[in-house]
Amino acid sequence: MPSLHGKNFIAGHLHGADRVHRISSPLDGTALPGAFCLASLDDVAAAMRAAAAAAAPLAQTTGEARATFLERIADEIVGLGDALIERAGLETALPAARLTGERGRTVNQLKLFATMARDGSWVDARIDRGMPERQPLPRPDLRRMKRPLGPVVVFGSSNFPLAFSVAGGDTASALCTGNPVVVKAHRAHPGTSELVAGAIQRAVEACGLPAGTFSMLHGEGSVIGTALVRHPAARAVGFTGSRAAGRALCDAAAARPDPIPVFAEMSSLNPVFLLPGALADRAGEIATGFAASMTLGVGQFCTKPGLVFGVAGPLLDSFIAGVAEAIAGSAPASMLSSDILSAFEHGRDTLGGQAGTAVATRSTVPVDVAKTQAAAIVMQTDAETFLAQPQLAEEVFGPLSLVVKCQSAEQLEALARRLDGQLTATVHGAPGDLATMAGLLGILATSAGRLIVNGWPTGVEVCHAMQHGGPWPATSDARFTSVGSAALERFIRPVCYQDVPQSLLPDALKDGNPLGIMRMAEGIAGRH
Amino acid sequence: MPSLHGKNFIAGHLHGADRVHRISSPLDGTALPGAFCLASLDDVAAAMRAAAAAAAPLAQTTGEARATFLERIADEIVGLGDALIERAGLETALPAARLTGERGRTVNQLKLFATMARDGSWVDARIDRGMPERQPLPRPDLRRMKRPLGPVVVFGSSNFPLAFSVAGGDTASALCTGNPVVVKAHRAHPGTSELVAGAIQRAVEACGLPAGTFSMLHGEGSVIGTALVRHPAARAVGFTGSRAAGRALCDAAAARPDPIPVFAEMSSLNPVFLLPGALADRAGEIATGFAASMTLGVGQFCTKPGLVFGVAGPLLDSFIAGVAEAIAGSAPASMLSSDILSAFEHGRDTLGGQAGTAVATRSTVPVDVAKTQAAAIVMQTDAETFLAQPQLAEEVFGPLSLVVKCQSAEQLEALARRLDGQLTATVHGAPGDLATMAGLLGILATSAGRLIVNGWPTGVEVCHAMQHGGPWPATSDARFTSVGSAALERFIRPVCYQDVPQSLLPDALKDGNPLGIMRMAEGIAGRH
Repeated sequence: MPSLHGKNFIAGHLHGADRVHRISSPLDGTALPGAFCLASLDDVAAAMRAAAAAAAPLAQTTGEARATFLERIADEIVGLGDALIERAGLETALPAARLTGERGRTVNQLKLFATMARDGSWVDARIDRGMPERQPLPRPDLRRMKRPLGPVVVFGSSNFPLAFSVAGGDTASALCTGNPVVVKAHRAHPGTSELVAGAIQRAVEACGLPAGTFSMLHGEGSVIGTALVRHPAARAVGFTGSRAAGRALCDAAAARPDPIPVFAEMSSLNPVFLLPGALADRAGEIATGFAASMTLGVGQFCTKPGLVFGVAGPLLDSFIAGVAEAIAGSAPASMLSSDILSAFEHGRDTLGGQAGTAVATRSTVPVDVAKTQAAAIVMQTDAETFLAQPQLAEEVFGPLSLVVKCQSAEQLEALARRLDGQLTATVHGAPGDLATMAGLLGILATSAGRLIVNGWPTGVEVCHAMQHGGPWPATSDARFTSVGSAALERFIRPVCYQDVPQSLLPDALKDGNPLGIMRMAEGIAGRH
Repeated sequence: MPSLHGKNFIAGHLHGADRVHRISSPLDGTALPGAFCLASLDDVAAAMRAAAAAAAPLAQTTGEARATFLERIADEIVGLGDALIERAGLETALPAARLTGERGRTVNQLKLFATMARDGSWVDARIDRGMPERQPLPRPDLRRMKRPLGPVVVFGSSNFPLAFSVAGGDTASALCTGNPVVVKAHRAHPGTSELVAGAIQRAVEACGLPAGTFSMLHGEGSVIGTALVRHPAARAVGFTGSRAAGRALCDAAAARPDPIPVFAEMSSLNPVFLLPGALADRAGEIATGFAASMTLGVGQFCTKPGLVFGVAGPLLDSFIAGVAEAIAGSAPASMLSSDILSAFEHGRDTLGGQAGTAVATRSTVPVDVAKTQAAAIVMQTDAETFLAQPQLAEEVFGPLSLVVKCQSAEQLEALARRLDGQLTATVHGAPGDLATMAGLLGILATSAGRLIVNGWPTGVEVCHAMQHGGPWPATSDARFTSVGSAALERFIRPVCYQDVPQSLLPDALKDGNPLGIMRMAEGIAGRH
């Protein structure tokens, strides 16, 4: 295990501080090595100033240069070896296999964005050539492309210490499109953050990029997080975390003299609709799949299925029996931190205290509080209670789900219409359920970012067609995704060049398409 | 002239009100026929409820159906004939030739969006097929497309009573992509608004679309405008107007329980940089072009060049002399309304009262206040004064521009770096100015949405490559345009379909590409 310096990364320099923050492992409560310097407001200003200074030179780098940079970050992360997995395991209690998988995802994500940077078509170039002879007025030569927004503030998330943190999807998509990044490290995994920040820092130096391309600060979200969002140089914000924290950042950004976009992923119940035909065909298989999905990573996935709707009766009962069988003897597991465990217990107990709710089934293995353990639990209620008590539709982060027993397929649809925004919505149906399924999918398309048929929402593929984002409160902006290649669309804006001479045009817009990118010319798309 | 009923259009019905609003013509102060019913908060709720009910059926219409609808609106507007031009002329004081041109633009815009609806490629379909054999985990079948956001609230603008009002670009792009629209008519041209609303209403009926597809209300922005933005069913807002009103709408939208996007176009100085080589070659021609651009439509264009930077000296003096010659004898013209004239006079006098500013030149023809007339005026100051007094960088809506005399080309760049967000920025340069021009364009690309070389910012082409939008305060969201085919991107959001059977997929995502649209399959774009 390499020793940790605990300092803040500010544009290529390491900065100490008077105040530090230490953490204990959720695995057993033992103090972990490392004292992490709490950044000051001066540090915030220094990091943001450096980012602002880096914005113009970074915007002028070639796609090839940014691709090489992203690939170098990936290589540096791989080069950290087992030390990264070990430290992340101690800090988050996530098993080595999961963390190894997450590292692979992080690295592949960086490489996907490298291919996007290298290809260059993300600039969405559009060319409408001049028509000097047009009557009654000539048309000027108009060429439009996307350009980087400028410094992006990224908040590391607790539940993906690699894939949604320092070098995660937000950072990768911001760097891919030429934006400097300032990361606020998550307090629960500062050592992991330091190791990854070091990897990025080495890549910045190796690639000869401006020092302000990357900074990372430790500190309280309510102090330096807000200060980062309020800083005049900040142009956009990426965040994954709680609804309250996300809302606070959105409000701070909206209250700026010049409001900036915040991409906050906050809260999703990821409802699952179980149609009668599917339960008749395979209630046991659905129960097993559901139990695996809701307990994956101790229920700490943003896409955990936290809400299940089915028609009351023997079929739904057999589903619940199957879930009971799957989780009754399941071993409790450590959550990411004691704060998160406390929030889980509070949410669980609040839900259990509501009139009309009951435990449907739960793991019977005792939990060890010293190991920050939580046990899986499934609650149940009926549709009337669910509709009457809005608190039942609030996310409980952890291995908990609520089964809502409805009276009819029509009531399933009525409940679907009442849902808040969701990252995902899932329908399990057999061919005979087709009519209900079509209606449900139509309704759910208005409130969810991803619709799943006969599968499970956990497992978010990094690809072109992924949408990870949905209407409020799932995310703050349903028009964008935080996973997949389209995630880079968050950090760019179009600029139109009118009658600009060839020599002054960006290469992406020049005649002859020197970069060989996809462009739209006179409305026709092609590599022309 | 057809008689005007003055009622609010609520989902196919005409609603009266107790309180009415009447207007006088800015041309001569005479009262115009028509008493326009001020909508109540109940009317707001009724219009929004109907829009919400229309959202799902409208989202399911075919592109062909929406194209036919947009074309029908265009035909209905043309069918209004001279009566529309006459009423608009009386309400806005804009000349018939200008209004005829604006009607043509409005109609062509509707037709452009009809071609986009018919083509259908705007859904940005992306398909990553399932890989059931992939190791270690199979990949599900993932297909993503854009869908309508839902009810869009559109605020008519004062300065484009046709092209940016009831059936303007916001409405056209929202309807093209299947969103219901509720328009808040601008108070200064209620009769024009009624005529166009009637045209849309007839098109809704002729095309058999849901009644809630379109509503239009008269009333105070601070009351019903805010209520529309706050209504739970509202999903997005389009606005063109003052910075204060735009900010108020942004704040109201951001303070909702579920914040929604506001596309507000507010305030832009549209700076022009005059480089020495260009002035040496053609100071007179530039002066003539500038005078025409800044006085076009009595300076009431959002792209009016309101700020000019040049290096102090004989070349800049000859430019000013040319401007003086062009506007000295120019006839004053009526502004859109007495409120706008008052605001212009206030802005002009405030600017003139600042220490270090002086009149460079002005029209010497007396104005007739009874005719709501304003006369062109060009002010001047030096770079130090400009930097010291932020008020000098505030838009004055009307025929006024401020010339800032700099000491050097370097100072031009320094001033460019200090600019707020702009819709446009213009550089006039000769081949010998190339080095400065490249530097300036690079700087201006960070603060403007459109860069123009050796041209003028007024005249915003409706095409694929247009960008009409820039960083705050030019617009509230620099990532989008309100003019051109890309304007439809404001009102859509992606949804991903995972493992959804072919029969339940939208046609845009089905195997075989039944709609024949552009799609990205495994990252490759084509009509496949």
